[in-house]
Amino acid sequence: SRSINLAVIPGDGIGQEVVTEGLKVLSAVLPQDVKLETKEYDFGARRYHATGETLTDADLDALKGHDAILLGAIGDPSVPSGVLERGFLLKLRFAFDHHVNLRPSKLLPGVETPLKGQPEIDFVVVREGTEGPYTGNGGTIRKGTEHEVATEVSVNTAYGVERVVRDAFARAQARPRKKLTLVHKNNVLTFAGHLWTNVFNAVAAEYPEVSTEYIHVDAATIYLVTQPERFDVIVTDNLFGDIITDLAAAVSGGIGVAASGNINPSGEFPSMFEPVHGSAPDIAGQGKADPTATVLSVALLLRHLGRDDEATRIEDAVAADLADRVGGPARSTAEIGDALAVRVAG
Amino acid sequence: SRSINLAVIPGDGIGQEVVTEGLKVLSAVLPQDVKLETKEYDFGARRYHATGETLTDADLDALKGHDAILLGAIGDPSVPSGVLERGFLLKLRFAFDHHVNLRPSKLLPGVETPLKGQPEIDFVVVREGTEGPYTGNGGTIRKGTEHEVATEVSVNTAYGVERVVRDAFARAQARPRKKLTLVHKNNVLTFAGHLWTNVFNAVAAEYPEVSTEYIHVDAATIYLVTQPERFDVIVTDNLFGDIITDLAAAVSGGIGVAASGNINPSGEFPSMFEPVHGSAPDIAGQGKADPTATVLSVALLLRHLGRDDEATRIEDAVAADLADRVGGPARSTAEIGDALAVRVAG
Ligand SMILES: CC(C)[C@H](C(=O)O)[C@@H](O)C(=O)O
Ligand SMILES: CC(C)[C@H](C(=O)O)[C@@H](O)C(=O)O
Repeated sequence: SRSINLAVIPGDGIGQEVVTEGLKVLSAVLPQDVKLETKEYDFGARRYHATGETLTDADLDALKGHDAILLGAIGDPSVPSGVLERGFLLKLRFAFDHHVNLRPSKLLPGVETPLKGQPEIDFVVVREGTEGPYTGNGGTIRKGTEHEVATEVSVNTAYGVERVVRDAFARAQARPRKKLTLVHKNNVLTFAGHLWTNVFNAVAAEYPEVSTEYIHVDAATIYLVTQPERFDVIVTDNLFGDIITDLAAAVSGGIGVAASGNINPSGEFPSMFEPVHGSAPDIAGQGKADPTATVLSVALLLRHLGRDDEATRIEDAVAADLADRVGGPARSTAEIGDALAVRVAG
Repeated sequence: SRSINLAVIPGDGIGQEVVTEGLKVLSAVLPQDVKLETKEYDFGARRYHATGETLTDADLDALKGHDAILLGAIGDPSVPSGVLERGFLLKLRFAFDHHVNLRPSKLLPGVETPLKGQPEIDFVVVREGTEGPYTGNGGTIRKGTEHEVATEVSVNTAYGVERVVRDAFARAQARPRKKLTLVHKNNVLTFAGHLWTNVFNAVAAEYPEVSTEYIHVDAATIYLVTQPERFDVIVTDNLFGDIITDLAAAVSGGIGVAASGNINPSGEFPSMFEPVHGSAPDIAGQGKADPTATVLSVALLLRHLGRDDEATRIEDAVAADLADRVGGPARSTAEIGDALAVRVAG
């Protein structure tokens, strides 16, 4: 299409800074005749303190009108833990049925990893985004007493598991190595585990070219640091995906470069793209944040909108920029954004 | 006491081999006048296939008569996932109320780590062992259909959380650095998370000398590979503890040296000690398994029985043996056990 109508949510902390650079690179990469419209939304801690609101029905209606959403970061120590996470981030993922939470990990040349021997890391995690222990089911009785009982209910449906498993198989089929790993804990969480395993095996029969394996989540953390090259595509539940993608980010260049997409593949609702990192209030406003993760999230956004060429140009620009960083001076948030904008335009 | 009456469960795969060496070292370290009695139990895959039983009431009664339990490994690919885990390992932990699951991580000199720069790693994870998502609560409806729903219920009680948090504070207080980290996901799992956080903060007030911090489980996996030296004692729920202790083992020498104790601090039931690794059927019977994790589990067992001197002698022997391994030839399971037995006796 000849236009992109983007919702922009800078959010808290470093969110504004990194989103500015993401948009800079986006403008630079788009052809002149593509009209980029952006509308900023003020969600996050400031709005919560001022109004008590995190995300209203009217907000959701407004966001629905966009082609996609770019988010910086949400969260501030001044807001009690859980309020913005459940009230905004998760509310949006659930309201817009973002069931494919896509998190690629690629260790690019020149990039530091805490692991010895510069391993080959190039995999993508398809994290389920609307079920599992994230549903908010559960509760508390006798709160604050010595007899308190608190429960959390992980909800898993054949419908919800199958669609994300299918998405992951299709992604594995499209990659050169064609390998898909299911990560779960089916020897302990036997109800959910058997559902995941059975659905996985059933869909596998339709993809004879994709080789499959099953790994328990605890063992997966071992492999992520001892043989990350064994992974190509990973599909997993919401909570396990949350945990292993932070570890994956850590070993493949850090959260400064980890991008993610909260995707509704049907297009019924706009998808949302955001860096994996948080709002980092300790360095906010100082021009120290690395905008690369946001810029790579813009690439995922473009690919989602069918703009593969521009997505690839951004990814190539980031790879070149990271390789050039080696031994170079520290640069500010804006300097990195400027450099990337120049590269994608050139 | 002048006698130790031990239940020994070799189990499956490499279990028999590593337990033999654990007992060898135990015999060598005990003073002549301490009578070591052992009784072997045949739990695991063979018994399951022969009788359909995993752990009967009569078995539990028999085990109750022992001072402690030493376990090799349970699990075999011939048994469906979950049967031995839920039917034996978890059944025993729950029946004997093993609520303190103790897992130390120490990177010893000379030991390989996948991390760059040989970081300082010396912490202990106190994993809750009888609650959380491990209770087996939950279920499945419309199994095998496209309308299947499977739930897993994490159950958390003030009683259960407080006792393990207290245990962790006492351990932190007794260590030189006196630092305790709570690992949870209280921004998403708000019911359980608030219970854990509130109990943690309440008990913290009784330990003014212990410095405390809270870290989300996803971020904890990042710190475990980028700054593991930040941890001293970690307290966490059953599932998070399962995940992060495998990662902790991976960065601090691998599962070949990771020991664990499933402890009932009251002594009402015998505690159980086992290596973190599994039954490794691929190398079973070949004398290739490293018995060090089992030997270190024996040290935890001795410390639990009040035999600190002998526990320390085993740990020192292991440290010396690991340092001596550097560049040396590969040794068999029995050779490593023999070397450790000589060291502790000497
Ligand atoms: C902030 C939090 C709700 C979120 C999650 O747990 O999904 C974050 O950790 C992430 O991975 O995007
Ligand atoms: C085998 C399994 C039941 C067990 C667990 O999940 O606790 C194991 O992974 C462990 O860590 O001891």
